[in-house]
Amino acid sequence: MKTTKKFILTEQEMPTRWYNILADMPNKPLPPLHPATKEPIKPEDLAPLFPMGLIQQEASTERYIDIPEEVLDLYHSYRPSPVFRAYGLEKAIGTKCKIYYKYEGYSYAGSHKANTAIAQAYYNKVEGVKKMTTETGAGQWGSALSFACQHFGIELEVFMVKISYEQKPYRKIMMNTYGATVVPSPSNLTESGRKILAEHPDSPGSLGIAISEAVERAAKDPDIKYSLGSVLNHVLLHQTIIGEEALLQMAKAGDYPDIVVGCFGGGSNFAGISFPFIRENLVNGKNTRAIAIEPASCPKLTRGRYMYDFGDSVGLTPLLAMYTLGHNFVPAKIHAGGLRYHGAGMLVSQLLKDNLMEAQAKLQKDCFHNGVIFARSEGILPAPEATYAITGAIDEANKCDEAGKPQTILFNLSGHGHLDLSAFDKYFTDELEDHELTQQEIEESIAQIQ
Amino acid sequence: MKTTKKFILTEQEMPTRWYNILADMPNKPLPPLHPATKEPIKPEDLAPLFPMGLIQQEASTERYIDIPEEVLDLYHSYRPSPVFRAYGLEKAIGTKCKIYYKYEGYSYAGSHKANTAIAQAYYNKVEGVKKMTTETGAGQWGSALSFACQHFGIELEVFMVKISYEQKPYRKIMMNTYGATVVPSPSNLTESGRKILAEHPDSPGSLGIAISEAVERAAKDPDIKYSLGSVLNHVLLHQTIIGEEALLQMAKAGDYPDIVVGCFGGGSNFAGISFPFIRENLVNGKNTRAIAIEPASCPKLTRGRYMYDFGDSVGLTPLLAMYTLGHNFVPAKIHAGGLRYHGAGMLVSQLLKDNLMEAQAKLQKDCFHNGVIFARSEGILPAPEATYAITGAIDEANKCDEAGKPQTILFNLSGHGHLDLSAFDKYFTDELEDHELTQQEIEESIAQIQ
Repeated sequence: MKTTKKFILTEQEMPTRWYNILADMPNKPLPPLHPATKEPIKPEDLAPLFPMGLIQQEASTERYIDIPEEVLDLYHSYRPSPVFRAYGLEKAIGTKCKIYYKYEGYSYAGSHKANTAIAQAYYNKVEGVKKMTTETGAGQWGSALSFACQHFGIELEVFMVKISYEQKPYRKIMMNTYGATVVPSPSNLTESGRKILAEHPDSPGSLGIAISEAVERAAKDPDIKYSLGSVLNHVLLHQTIIGEEALLQMAKAGDYPDIVVGCFGGGSNFAGISFPFIRENLVNGKNTRAIAIEPASCPKLTRGRYMYDFGDSVGLTPLLAMYTLGHNFVPAKIHAGGLRYHGAGMLVSQLLKDNLMEAQAKLQKDCFHNGVIFARSEGILPAPEATYAITGAIDEANKCDEAGKPQTILFNLSGHGHLDLSAFDKYFTDELEDHELTQQEIEESIAQIQ
Repeated sequence: MKTTKKFILTEQEMPTRWYNILADMPNKPLPPLHPATKEPIKPEDLAPLFPMGLIQQEASTERYIDIPEEVLDLYHSYRPSPVFRAYGLEKAIGTKCKIYYKYEGYSYAGSHKANTAIAQAYYNKVEGVKKMTTETGAGQWGSALSFACQHFGIELEVFMVKISYEQKPYRKIMMNTYGATVVPSPSNLTESGRKILAEHPDSPGSLGIAISEAVERAAKDPDIKYSLGSVLNHVLLHQTIIGEEALLQMAKAGDYPDIVVGCFGGGSNFAGISFPFIRENLVNGKNTRAIAIEPASCPKLTRGRYMYDFGDSVGLTPLLAMYTLGHNFVPAKIHAGGLRYHGAGMLVSQLLKDNLMEAQAKLQKDCFHNGVIFARSEGILPAPEATYAITGAIDEANKCDEAGKPQTILFNLSGHGHLDLSAFDKYFTDELEDHELTQQEIEESIAQIQ
């Protein structure tokens, strides 16, 4: 064969440490504040929700953290994940750039979410936790945690936004198949849920309500812990296995990326692919641009404000220093459900503030257009979220070509779209809508929380 | 790490030849007969339907056939596929056997069907074919061929059984995303379809009708060729890449299977995993049992008769010497749509007749039961078809344990079940039914064609 399309690693070659970017950041993020006292939170404040192993990682300043053996074992059910050279896509768009993508869709749940689900379930198991709760929107995170909990012998209850529970039954069935209990939210199981239902018996639910229900369960029952799939430092830490593998795979390809791209919801898959490359910039004199791609209808990085805000919609979480559109912000119903979040993780926010990364916003229609080009040229049917990364890569390639300076681009294809095919149908029948926010809408949303 | 879970090959290690078992069979299959003259068919009889490259492969007696470079290139989008040691499953069922599985679900279409789709589209392209037709039931085969045709610049029209078209829209959308046109069958595009619609305007369609429509399009238009996803010799040939890779991977594992298992519809995935191991039995003195697992509701191998019969329901194809339940046989509506076929490929039928392989029939409920055990222990959500192979492997492991003689078992996990989750839901709500055929039902079905 003249060319190699797929760069793989053996289990033995897989990195065995997560990378903690906090160790190398010139400016550290501001501390999270207690929602009541507004004082920096202490580890014990978080103990009702999380096991101490994860709380320690949340605040750790160690540069590398060893991945436990049992986590590595389960990672091996789908890791190391491949890096592909996108010959088909390059030809389809006629670029002189070299485009590579890391593919996380081979995980049991079909996305990168498994990387932190496994780690979180493990640290809960180590501390004897028997039951966990979480929330899920479209269901990617819920299904990732379902199998991880099943594997480590932990019961899992997932509060799934009711409208998704009804409209997208496949993810619910997947969670059931992995042994989890799925509850449409708002539910009668919590005070938060009962309160909403009393006021709005037909409430379709929201991620904010589902978070409140899951957090309430854990806060009120010492035998139950809570789990979150993005935003927090320890979640981003677990995802760095993506970029650590990619560094080795790019070396096997005899190449190094000038640009690294990831889509952006709360920050976890973007951090996963980019943080190890940002380390190489900070520590080893490399000069890779790291670009986060967010939806134009939920543009916290490009148009939000850096300030303290709650992580959830109802104000139960600590206050986090981050780029935000305000915790009351309700994003338009784009199909990339994983990107519909009002804030950005603290680590990413600080990096953006310090110009150590970049951000761009893209329209949903353009992303589906490029997703179809990708499917027809590379074969893999991308998740709606991943089409934002594809679009970021294609747009950068076009810019390079126009400037006459072809570069090497690596993006993270964070998951497959097998359970999101109805969104592609809507694209083909021209039923997709985009909402480009006015400056006034954004300022009003932020003003609500000041 | 103490143990290796995943045995992989680089692109450079991937075998570059398909294996043609015809070369090593002690008794060759009887020749296919022309449906009108009942004389052995000649290559030119098939020329309206297939390109000459595939017709030559259908009759070839060469032991190995080189895989063309362009086919290898596209194989590399998902091949070599991994072999997993099923540590989780072994623990879950408490066996002392070693269980391995080859996983074909990483292909763009989610199953082994891509292996022949790519090859068939390629040989059509080489001969300048611009348009192809095929039929599809649940849509696995149709989606595999859709991307392959897109890649090689061939227009594709898929006749999809109408009831599946309406009930399972996801596979249709997948085919559209890959650029294919999908037509619910029966349609007004063919005489066959119009005839059915005139008699039964509300006909839900059947695979037999869809085949008739696709074959008719190709037979009547010299610019259109037809493609079939199983049964024929050249299709089984293309699948042998599965077993050729598995041989190398088992060697990397330092093991060799005593038993190889595949589920059975028309024979293609079973042939893919088993033929290279049967060769080792025939040529190199190995002694591996090859076991095909079919549904109890469609038991052509275990309860059908070896005789000449048509490959389709309406009698347009050549007569094939095979185990069959009669071409009028209508299998119960089990969810493993890919296994609902009345006959068995000629090569497999002859091997079974000569006791060079074995066959077993399993009940749908048992298979879903084992499919859930597999999902919860290994993480991968199996296609309904693949749960039959899982069940074959588990049942053999139990027998070995009872006999106090643990063995090494390899099975083919032919695809994922992401688009079949509603079937798992029916299993959980106890809505699955099995139909165990009486001897009289089988004899009546066979008597119709004698």
